[in-house]
Amino acid sequence: LVPRLRPFTSTIFAEMTALAVRTGAVNLGQGFPDTDGPSGMLDAAKDALFGGANQYPPGPGRPELRAAISAHRARYGTHYDPDTEILVTAGATEAISASLLALTEQGDEVIVIEPYYDSYAAAVAMAGAARRVVSLVPDGDRFALDVDALRAAVTPATRAILVNSPHNPTGTVFTRAELTAIAEVCVEHDLVAITDEVYEHLVFDEHEHVPLATLPGMRERTVSISSAGKTFNCTGWKIGWVCSTPELVAAVKASKQFLTFVSGGPLQPAVAHALDHELDWVERLRTSLAAKRDRLSKGLTEAGFAVWPSAGTYFVCADVRPLGFTDAAELAWQLPERVGVAAVPVKVFTDHPDGWNHVLRFAFCKRDEVLDTAIERLHGLA
Amino acid sequence: LVPRLRPFTSTIFAEMTALAVRTGAVNLGQGFPDTDGPSGMLDAAKDALFGGANQYPPGPGRPELRAAISAHRARYGTHYDPDTEILVTAGATEAISASLLALTEQGDEVIVIEPYYDSYAAAVAMAGAARRVVSLVPDGDRFALDVDALRAAVTPATRAILVNSPHNPTGTVFTRAELTAIAEVCVEHDLVAITDEVYEHLVFDEHEHVPLATLPGMRERTVSISSAGKTFNCTGWKIGWVCSTPELVAAVKASKQFLTFVSGGPLQPAVAHALDHELDWVERLRTSLAAKRDRLSKGLTEAGFAVWPSAGTYFVCADVRPLGFTDAAELAWQLPERVGVAAVPVKVFTDHPDGWNHVLRFAFCKRDEVLDTAIERLHGLA
Ligand SMILES: CSCCC(=O)C(=O)O
Ligand SMILES: CSCCC(=O)C(=O)O
Repeated sequence: LVPRLRPFTSTIFAEMTALAVRTGAVNLGQGFPDTDGPSGMLDAAKDALFGGANQYPPGPGRPELRAAISAHRARYGTHYDPDTEILVTAGATEAISASLLALTEQGDEVIVIEPYYDSYAAAVAMAGAARRVVSLVPDGDRFALDVDALRAAVTPATRAILVNSPHNPTGTVFTRAELTAIAEVCVEHDLVAITDEVYEHLVFDEHEHVPLATLPGMRERTVSISSAGKTFNCTGWKIGWVCSTPELVAAVKASKQFLTFVSGGPLQPAVAHALDHELDWVERLRTSLAAKRDRLSKGLTEAGFAVWPSAGTYFVCADVRPLGFTDAAELAWQLPERVGVAAVPVKVFTDHPDGWNHVLRFAFCKRDEVLDTAIERLHGLA
Repeated sequence: LVPRLRPFTSTIFAEMTALAVRTGAVNLGQGFPDTDGPSGMLDAAKDALFGGANQYPPGPGRPELRAAISAHRARYGTHYDPDTEILVTAGATEAISASLLALTEQGDEVIVIEPYYDSYAAAVAMAGAARRVVSLVPDGDRFALDVDALRAAVTPATRAILVNSPHNPTGTVFTRAELTAIAEVCVEHDLVAITDEVYEHLVFDEHEHVPLATLPGMRERTVSISSAGKTFNCTGWKIGWVCSTPELVAAVKASKQFLTFVSGGPLQPAVAHALDHELDWVERLRTSLAAKRDRLSKGLTEAGFAVWPSAGTYFVCADVRPLGFTDAAELAWQLPERVGVAAVPVKVFTDHPDGWNHVLRFAFCKRDEVLDTAIERLHGLA
């Protein structure tokens, strides 16, 4: 293994899920739902399987999927030409790695906001670039962007900033003010914004997801990334996409086409169907997830954790100190054996673990009875 | 786009297929079949879709698929532990890019045999490594490995050699003697061999595919790559795999898990089914492809080309000079408009085009009536 990848031999998700499977623990570690997506989408996949969609799709993705993505983005205020401004990828993960490999290289810096989804650091390293990490800071009952720290992180070598909102793992949804501050920094320093918006539709209560590309000056410098996995309960399909300018999409395609070429042939028309016809289903998913968030947050509180409100995503974060623990990572590795529940320690997503030692992330994208079992078991910790 | 990727903004396959679609040409450019794989495999994919296989598969791939790959490799003389020595990837393309990103870096050299599949050069460049190119040489009616040139290409910086047999685009199947020479070079210089064996089952007549890993000293230094696409007529599924030592598989997984994480969830059990139960179907495919090779080779000869015999793969190469042309690339770009057939010029797969200017590659993995139409149209060239 080359030196640049030595810090990245495993992922917390694979390890924690393997531990959960080994111990029979309820897995609230890795974020994936335990029910299927819309049946119309599954039927569309079946039709594609038996309807001749099993050979290479076109490099940029099947035309009906690019058209559906374009129409979908237009509903949220940005227009992308399906032929030149949209690229289908193997999930958001490939979209991110392809973007970084295409746009950054040795000597470049990429700003990453921590805690960060683990593939960001690895993908920056694969590109040979360096990451500059800006920490979210507690602000009342949410985690907020430290705009001064963001400004201070920009150097002449900065090429891009990775923005993830709704934010995994904290459940933070960046406010319009926060996003505007990011936009100003990008415009002022001529940075590309790479936005991971995979939880764009899983936003609760009065919170609102604002696509960074809709802010002044950002349409032309944002590589917007999303995927079907979280929106349509099909995390294993790995159908994602990039929307940007023709120039940026062409750059991402240059690396993407040699990472996987294409993927998920017969699943692509099914995602097109879902984007075109299943948004009511997504609305019901959103409502249901908000209730699950409440259920798990309440249960965690009753079990003795201090819980941060989650504004979006699959995740809620909890402080382990009220239960007498100081190291959430140590606890996370014991939790499956000790009480039969798996969760993920947030400090593994940081370069500066000190502020995050006491935070555990729990996924609530599970059936109610699964959440209830987990809560019951977690009461055993007190 | 970063400088290292500027030579790789497009692929000949995407471009030639787009041109074929635009002009209504018979597409013998990109290699994909126009009939589906075994119906049992499609049924298995449907069962997986409706049987709860839509969330993230495990990072290394679904267990039943790794078990099926292990059993399949054992049939051909090498044993791989499904838990530590097998990794499922988004097709062979991701297997190759992940291997190069994991095993090579700036300052390293990778030996590539030309003409080479286009992703090899791009993936070497993404890793920041340099390629050293060894040309195949005409030898009677086949293309042969130049063992002296191979030996001369090794430097102290050489880390790996990419070996593709059965060979795309020439249809060459390396002989045991050629593979033994490669093995000796690898062992002598402590090189890793990365083998692209996606056409392993598509070998005709008396020719035999010898997995490099079966040769002395090679099991422990070979990253063997194959995929379902060509074996089971599902090129759009992009389910591939890596078999190697635990150490090398762990290295490839380190990059692979951050390129795509996983992919093709519900298609993985279907490929497991195919490997376990559809080898008779593959044998019929092989027989049918040998007949298609003969049909197209004869047709091309009658149309005025000089044809090299193809020992395996989907492809046959033809010399355009007997028809009065000298530049096969110029001809390839005109062919769709001129006679309604698309083919691929071999020189785009080389660093030293001079020896390959006159060679066109045609795919024969098409229905007989499609081949016949193409042949009829190509008669118009004379
Ligand atoms: C790609 S596996 C991890 C799933 C996920 O998005 C998460 O749990 O954060
Ligand atoms: C990955 S697209 C190209 C298909 C193929 O293997 C070929 O035509 O050589």
